[in-house]
Amino acid sequence: MHRDNETVRLEAFSDGVFAIAMTLLVLQIKVPRHEAVALKGLAQSIVALWPSYLAFSTSFITILVIWIHHHWIFKLINRDGHALFYWNGLLLFCVSFIPFPTALLSEYLIHPDARVASTLYSGTFLATSISLFALWRHASLHLLSPSASEQKIDEAVQLTNQYRYAPPLYFLVFILSFISESWSAGLCLLLALTFAFGGWPDKGNH
Amino acid sequence: MHRDNETVRLEAFSDGVFAIAMTLLVLQIKVPRHEAVALKGLAQSIVALWPSYLAFSTSFITILVIWIHHHWIFKLINRDGHALFYWNGLLLFCVSFIPFPTALLSEYLIHPDARVASTLYSGTFLATSISLFALWRHASLHLLSPSASEQKIDEAVQLTNQYRYAPPLYFLVFILSFISESWSAGLCLLLALTFAFGGWPDKGNH
Amino acid sequence: MHRDNETVRLEAFSDGVFAIAMTLLVLQIKVPRHEAVALKGLAQSIVALWPSYLAFSTSFITILVIWIHHHWIFKLINRDGHALFYWNGLLLFCVSFIPFPTALLSEYLIHPDARVASTLYSGTFLATSISLFALWRHASLHLLSPSASEQKIDEAVQLTNQYRYAPPLYFLVFILSFISESWSAGLCLLLALTFAFGGWPDKGNH
Amino acid sequence: MHRDNETVRLEAFSDGVFAIAMTLLVLQIKVPRHEAVALKGLAQSIVALWPSYLAFSTSFITILVIWIHHHWIFKLINRDGHALFYWNGLLLFCVSFIPFPTALLSEYLIHPDARVASTLYSGTFLATSISLFALWRHASLHLLSPSASEQKIDEAVQLTNQYRYAPPLYFLVFILSFISESWSAGLCLLLALTFAFGGWPDKGNH
Repeated sequence: MHRDNETVRLEAFSDGVFAIAMTLLVLQIKVPRHEAVALKGLAQSIVALWPSYLAFSTSFITILVIWIHHHWIFKLINRDGHALFYWNGLLLFCVSFIPFPTALLSEYLIHPDARVASTLYSGTFLATSISLFALWRHASLHLLSPSASEQKIDEAVQLTNQYRYAPPLYFLVFILSFISESWSAGLCLLLALTFAFGGWPDKGNH
Repeated sequence: MHRDNETVRLEAFSDGVFAIAMTLLVLQIKVPRHEAVALKGLAQSIVALWPSYLAFSTSFITILVIWIHHHWIFKLINRDGHALFYWNGLLLFCVSFIPFPTALLSEYLIHPDARVASTLYSGTFLATSISLFALWRHASLHLLSPSASEQKIDEAVQLTNQYRYAPPLYFLVFILSFISESWSAGLCLLLALTFAFGGWPDKGNH
Repeated sequence: MHRDNETVRLEAFSDGVFAIAMTLLVLQIKVPRHEAVALKGLAQSIVALWPSYLAFSTSFITILVIWIHHHWIFKLINRDGHALFYWNGLLLFCVSFIPFPTALLSEYLIHPDARVASTLYSGTFLATSISLFALWRHASLHLLSPSASEQKIDEAVQLTNQYRYAPPLYFLVFILSFISESWSAGLCLLLALTFAFGGWPDKGNH
Repeated sequence: MHRDNETVRLEAFSDGVFAIAMTLLVLQIKVPRHEAVALKGLAQSIVALWPSYLAFSTSFITILVIWIHHHWIFKLINRDGHALFYWNGLLLFCVSFIPFPTALLSEYLIHPDARVASTLYSGTFLATSISLFALWRHASLHLLSPSASEQKIDEAVQLTNQYRYAPPLYFLVFILSFISESWSAGLCLLLALTFAFGGWPDKGNH
């Protein structure tokens, strides 16, 4: 109960930012213009939007996964404090920036300059994964309840192990984006799916 | 009380996505441009936007109905778990995609290629109804409290009966969209209204 | 406590729609284009946007007032039910439509066809005030706690008296819009301010 | 517990407006058009968007700081009342207007008329800081619990001291915007960072 009083509004506010950033992504899928449709038909024009669908799906799943992790972190901690507001604010900053590189990738994935769009896209995800890692590091070092149950500590250890891999993996995808924009974009989707399905803390009752 | 701690944040987050997706729909109704208004007057230009109003109303009511069903499902269950996050995530993915086919239908309902727009529109609703069905199937099989009251079980049975019909009905509308785009679009609205007014669990005090 | 379980999620969801509809209004204020700025300077271009500021302020204050009334209504009732979802859904439908007539008025308030924009604008407010009245009528007749305190009943009576005036007043403004678009638009702002400052239930501790 | 019943919905609604205003800011960063990219490449086009990044960051951090302060204010008070709704509504009005001057500054920071954009930008922040100050003044004079603990009173005194500086500082930045638009815009960012890192109430357990 006491925990609620301290972090409940921070969680609700963060949820708002996550939910809005995810839902705004759809605005980046542009309805084909009448001139283009006159040329090649609506069906083909919609199919030609596949970079938009790819970017939408990847960003949506990534933000959803970040939200789930955020949810876990706040289930384990029971206090707030100055620094938590900073690290959480940094994470929200990254998350609410994501719609821009998503729109950029949608527009320029099939273009000679696709590499630039892909670099900014994976670079944003790299920054986001680092800020999530920093938030977790701070929370696990300072805000775990001193009287945490053994199960909670187990979960914390598992999350720590998992977060260790996210920033270096996104760093590799970022480096790769200088070489091949399609591989890099595809791996962003693969990573999001991996973290979604692979990384659940192992709990009996869950 | 215990139930709250497990699903309350998941519900609040989902509510955010539903509310935003519904409210973003209005951005797809485009203010008529000055050139068009100069040609045929503002009154006629606004009337000519009727496909936008139809698509806005249909999508708004459909998402509202999905939200109400989501609300019922979460009133019946009292635990969360990995799989609930996946099925719920899939539903949110479908719901937050809806503004795009809505915008497409607004733009191309009176156009030779209207059939394509209508197919994507009803196809999105088909996918959404399947994901709601899957969420409910999972929840009713695994997350109903073992000690549920008889009334809760009754409601669950009623919801199961009702959900059985949604996916096949939307499948018919989807098939119909290949034949007649206006019938298909109209039936989407009719289905939303039917589910809104017809499908309430029969409870004494409700 | 019992009340919370029944209406708390409905309130949170409605709050989401209100907050988003209010905040989306700002997107209708369009940054002046470079060609227009080249012609008459940025300062004049910004001043020329006054219809946008007027429409933004009026719609923002109106939705805020509706939210405050919504808040009161839900403080007085302690049950939900099928019909509440319908009436509340109808109100949310009207509220989330408001950004469109707002954008239309911003664009066409200084235009020969301004009357049309003004009619749709005040017509939307008329519909919204009727749906708020209907929501309140339903709530006050069916959902007031039978064991309500005398103070609660007093507040309900006051709200009833107040709501009696909103629909006819907006009807007058709607009729007026066929005669003078600027008076009608100005009165919409005046009415919003009047309801904001004039209509508080008279409570000792409030 | 009693406190919750009175202000919890006001806080949740305000959080919604803050979160949406912050997240909408990203829509003002416009994807470069294909013609511009054909001329100077995508990398340079993205770099040329630096006024957008500056405006996005400044506005995001400013709204985040206002949210944190809002959070503190509502932790100290435990009643609501008519006037609180007005002052809070005024603050929300200012906050939800911020995306417009942000978009204007993004578009016109490197333009002969930049001064106008910068004046509106810092003027909006000045108005916002005054309305936050007014909200706090009202809350601290009328809504502090009479039986407040000494720690709460200490925090209130500290917040009062801090808020004393915000409006005059933003007034200076506003004046400065008539002389140098770049200094003024830069100082807005600096002020936001200063308030973010400098102004925490000094509590042992925080």
